[in-house]
Amino acid sequence: GTVPPGAHGRFTLRTHSCGELRTAHLGEEVTLCGWVQYVRQDLFQPFMSVSPVMVTPACSCLTHVSSAILTGEIEVHANNVEVLNICQKLPFEIKDFVKKSEGLRMQYRYLDLRSSQMQYNLRLRSRLVMKMREYLCNLHGFVDVETPTLFKRTPGGAKEFVVPSGEPGRFYSLPQSPQQFKQLLMVAGIDRYFQLARCYRDEGSKPDRQPEFTQVDIEMSFTDQAGIRDLVEGLLQYSWPEEKGFVSPPFPVMTYEEAMRDYGVDKPDTRFEMKLVDISGAFHNTQIQFLREALHQPGGSIQAICVPQGAVSSTHMHFSFSHLPSDNFGRLLPDVSRQQLLQMVGAEPGDLILLTAGTEGRVRPLLGRLRLQCADLLEGHSVKVRDPSAFHFLWVVDFPLFLPKEDSPEQLESAHHPFTAPVPEDAHLLYSQPHKVRGQHYDLVLNGSEIGGGSIRIHSASEQRHVLDTVLQEDPSLLSHLLEALDSGAPPHGGIALGLDRLLAIIVGASSIRDVIAFPKSFRGHDLMSHAPDFVSEEDLRPYHIKVTWPEGLTPGGEDQ
Amino acid sequence: GTVPPGAHGRFTLRTHSCGELRTAHLGEEVTLCGWVQYVRQDLFQPFMSVSPVMVTPACSCLTHVSSAILTGEIEVHANNVEVLNICQKLPFEIKDFVKKSEGLRMQYRYLDLRSSQMQYNLRLRSRLVMKMREYLCNLHGFVDVETPTLFKRTPGGAKEFVVPSGEPGRFYSLPQSPQQFKQLLMVAGIDRYFQLARCYRDEGSKPDRQPEFTQVDIEMSFTDQAGIRDLVEGLLQYSWPEEKGFVSPPFPVMTYEEAMRDYGVDKPDTRFEMKLVDISGAFHNTQIQFLREALHQPGGSIQAICVPQGAVSSTHMHFSFSHLPSDNFGRLLPDVSRQQLLQMVGAEPGDLILLTAGTEGRVRPLLGRLRLQCADLLEGHSVKVRDPSAFHFLWVVDFPLFLPKEDSPEQLESAHHPFTAPVPEDAHLLYSQPHKVRGQHYDLVLNGSEIGGGSIRIHSASEQRHVLDTVLQEDPSLLSHLLEALDSGAPPHGGIALGLDRLLAIIVGASSIRDVIAFPKSFRGHDLMSHAPDFVSEEDLRPYHIKVTWPEGLTPGGEDQ
Repeated sequence: GTVPPGAHGRFTLRTHSCGELRTAHLGEEVTLCGWVQYVRQDLFQPFMSVSPVMVTPACSCLTHVSSAILTGEIEVHANNVEVLNICQKLPFEIKDFVKKSEGLRMQYRYLDLRSSQMQYNLRLRSRLVMKMREYLCNLHGFVDVETPTLFKRTPGGAKEFVVPSGEPGRFYSLPQSPQQFKQLLMVAGIDRYFQLARCYRDEGSKPDRQPEFTQVDIEMSFTDQAGIRDLVEGLLQYSWPEEKGFVSPPFPVMTYEEAMRDYGVDKPDTRFEMKLVDISGAFHNTQIQFLREALHQPGGSIQAICVPQGAVSSTHMHFSFSHLPSDNFGRLLPDVSRQQLLQMVGAEPGDLILLTAGTEGRVRPLLGRLRLQCADLLEGHSVKVRDPSAFHFLWVVDFPLFLPKEDSPEQLESAHHPFTAPVPEDAHLLYSQPHKVRGQHYDLVLNGSEIGGGSIRIHSASEQRHVLDTVLQEDPSLLSHLLEALDSGAPPHGGIALGLDRLLAIIVGASSIRDVIAFPKSFRGHDLMSHAPDFVSEEDLRPYHIKVTWPEGLTPGGEDQ
Repeated sequence: GTVPPGAHGRFTLRTHSCGELRTAHLGEEVTLCGWVQYVRQDLFQPFMSVSPVMVTPACSCLTHVSSAILTGEIEVHANNVEVLNICQKLPFEIKDFVKKSEGLRMQYRYLDLRSSQMQYNLRLRSRLVMKMREYLCNLHGFVDVETPTLFKRTPGGAKEFVVPSGEPGRFYSLPQSPQQFKQLLMVAGIDRYFQLARCYRDEGSKPDRQPEFTQVDIEMSFTDQAGIRDLVEGLLQYSWPEEKGFVSPPFPVMTYEEAMRDYGVDKPDTRFEMKLVDISGAFHNTQIQFLREALHQPGGSIQAICVPQGAVSSTHMHFSFSHLPSDNFGRLLPDVSRQQLLQMVGAEPGDLILLTAGTEGRVRPLLGRLRLQCADLLEGHSVKVRDPSAFHFLWVVDFPLFLPKEDSPEQLESAHHPFTAPVPEDAHLLYSQPHKVRGQHYDLVLNGSEIGGGSIRIHSASEQRHVLDTVLQEDPSLLSHLLEALDSGAPPHGGIALGLDRLLAIIVGASSIRDVIAFPKSFRGHDLMSHAPDFVSEEDLRPYHIKVTWPEGLTPGGEDQ
């Protein structure tokens, strides 16, 4: 870190942290405080560091030493040793190589956090957000504004936790993001806003989701998409941890259509090739029935990916295909098609070609998932596909503004949220063919994960009213305060939110965002240490005018019968 | 601010902010974006600044100008003016001298925030917290750790909002502070923790309280009271806004007993004298019956304050006394007592002496309140008592660790919280006379308001168990995770929490913390802009297995009958 030398001793009973002592300190009298890792033959060895840069874990007793025993270049001789606290037998040893179950780690999180990896993760998180703040606040004049988390339920906010108030029937809602507030701050003339915002989402038991998470929330007036991209690229470049290499703006920009065409997904992992190839042209006159049928349906297409050296590795690779007679397929192809196919996908001897036929809308995502599974499988067998130390950033733009609703496809819903402005050249289509409108939404993708998303917002009250009333057929009265605000001279504005937990997990190479959060919930939303959520007495609920409705088979205060 | 010149134009459609233009820019072509304050004879004049340092408010239309009209030393001539948005008639004029009702300000908060005072308050808040972070994180190696807000109800946490989970009968709780987590982080070896923590407290309709508020939350290992005081004094000195003068550590330290004795309150406003004086000595042989009676009861005392020039001003001052025949009182005193009294309180001609008799426990707080009321009354009549630009910091220490419970005085409760360590020389009394133990708690007081509080914590599991089990008679199983954590080698540790909203309100001289919060709730806990809290349908509550219990006379979804 950049912390001045000697700073870690200030305000404490020690004169130095253990990690600070060097040959320059020879002959000095020092006072150290720390943990003893283990005691052997009445000597505690090694005396462990409490340097805030890397704390090594507690074990048997906690000491306060005027001059003691240290590893490294120097030795500290003890004049006096004071035991500050003792330690009972721990549920697991605190050594990085001791594997613990996830449940045990969560139950004794305060011990798990003593591991060098978790110390690194939390300290890196602190350093990174500090650099982000410096960039936004000190270098670019952004204003850090806190917005409420006790708010009103948003239309369609099915994933919002409710918080009963003291007034019968009235509830606050924990918002999924400060979206409305950040826009209102632009109307309020704040010009440049940011916040490390706590957000809430009740998604039940989705893997690797947390009911509360943190986003780097940003909004700017008088800007455009290029302005936001510049800002965020500079932000990441400035705050990126030194030991993780460099971030080199500008990041590539890809349209949604290109991403779906080449990678079969809207968040492509561009660390490796294996792009989707449309090979329909090689099969125009095919006699193979399932390919003919696929090509003749509306939007029909045959597409492939070529897995380099996949045939060599394929004895290890097990895919489950339905409808695809893969073993016999090569024999069915006429030589000419086979040659054309190999050329189109650029196959070399030993490569594996995976082919799908059907409507484009189904074929692309399927191949997109297969592409990622192939990469995982190959890497599982030590074939190098992706550089684990590489960070590939990518902007994806030109998303459709609206999508057909899944349960009633004749109706439209916002692809992201109803405040996203249309791409200027599509704006007139809002009033005639809204399904064709592209939105000024942008996603930031890192190594195949979406780590941020944002948009230029609608700043015209009449356009916003049209989108809510006519296109989405939602009740605009729920957002009347926002519409009124737009009517009071709202500047053009836009912003972005970066998922801090996900970004950090990728930076430190963690498999779960739980590893970059100090006290995460389990995948069922439980705090295994304190046993939250917990039962609350009827009496304690009375001031909130609510009562539990027990499903059949459950009894108050009890478990499943 | 310290933001580099030109930074406010970056990432935007403008080349400069209006406030940036100087004679050095003469002859340049610039693009400006901003609000027009008013239009007069087809000229908008003045074109208002969107400098992020001070935004002046929007009015009739929003423009985008290549070269326009500016106040100050230079003029900008417009080549082209583009209207970016229009503005409907506003509910109030955005001029600082236009007084608006609190309700209107809250309903149209996004307009209210355009006032120069609110812009100043929010931008100062951002600057101040940034400086605090620099001090803690960059200069002193503190780690910024986010802790959960969806937690478990704490024992006796009557003021905690509950959040229903998807599991029948189970609730999260929104914690009043990260107290348990900050202590667990010390056990986890984080050594130095801080967080700008969102906290929650359901206090119904208390004036000038907010259901969510922010505290600067700090905890350190291997420290003591002096260490925490040093740290906080340095923090305030470093982050203090230049334009508000200087903070000069060390701050005075006063014991709880001294504060009560001299000021009748545990958060003395030391900007002015008028201290309490025990004048019992002048009345040992008094014949006045109510004084005799007062002195003869256990703990009986006669005390006074002397209000300088209060007799002169007293024709304007109206106190309501019961039991005190004030007009005739002077005549009842023998000359010798009167002289002694005047001398004891140091009265000069024209001063007013206020005298109370009774038990010390009642007399001191009463005089303490009278002292503050006198100051207010005198200032209301333009007598200078307190310097409005002065900031008097004060530490109050040596609080009692336990107090008798109000409703059952034979039982003890924590004066602050059950984790506070005893003063070392009183520790043995924990096991014999707990009511006599002083705690290592400290309050930070600014101008008579408590702006922070903290303590050195108990780090011995057995001591903590004794306090919970035997002294407080609470169920220790609710805190078993914390007790287990202390048993795993917890270092000695302590910390503090500063109330950020209150601190800022005092710095900017606001009468309410609402003036330093972007989107505060009304005193009834309502968001008057969005109408939170609001009704939620039975269907939306079903996933949480709760149902509203409507009090008689109220109907679902309706108001009072």
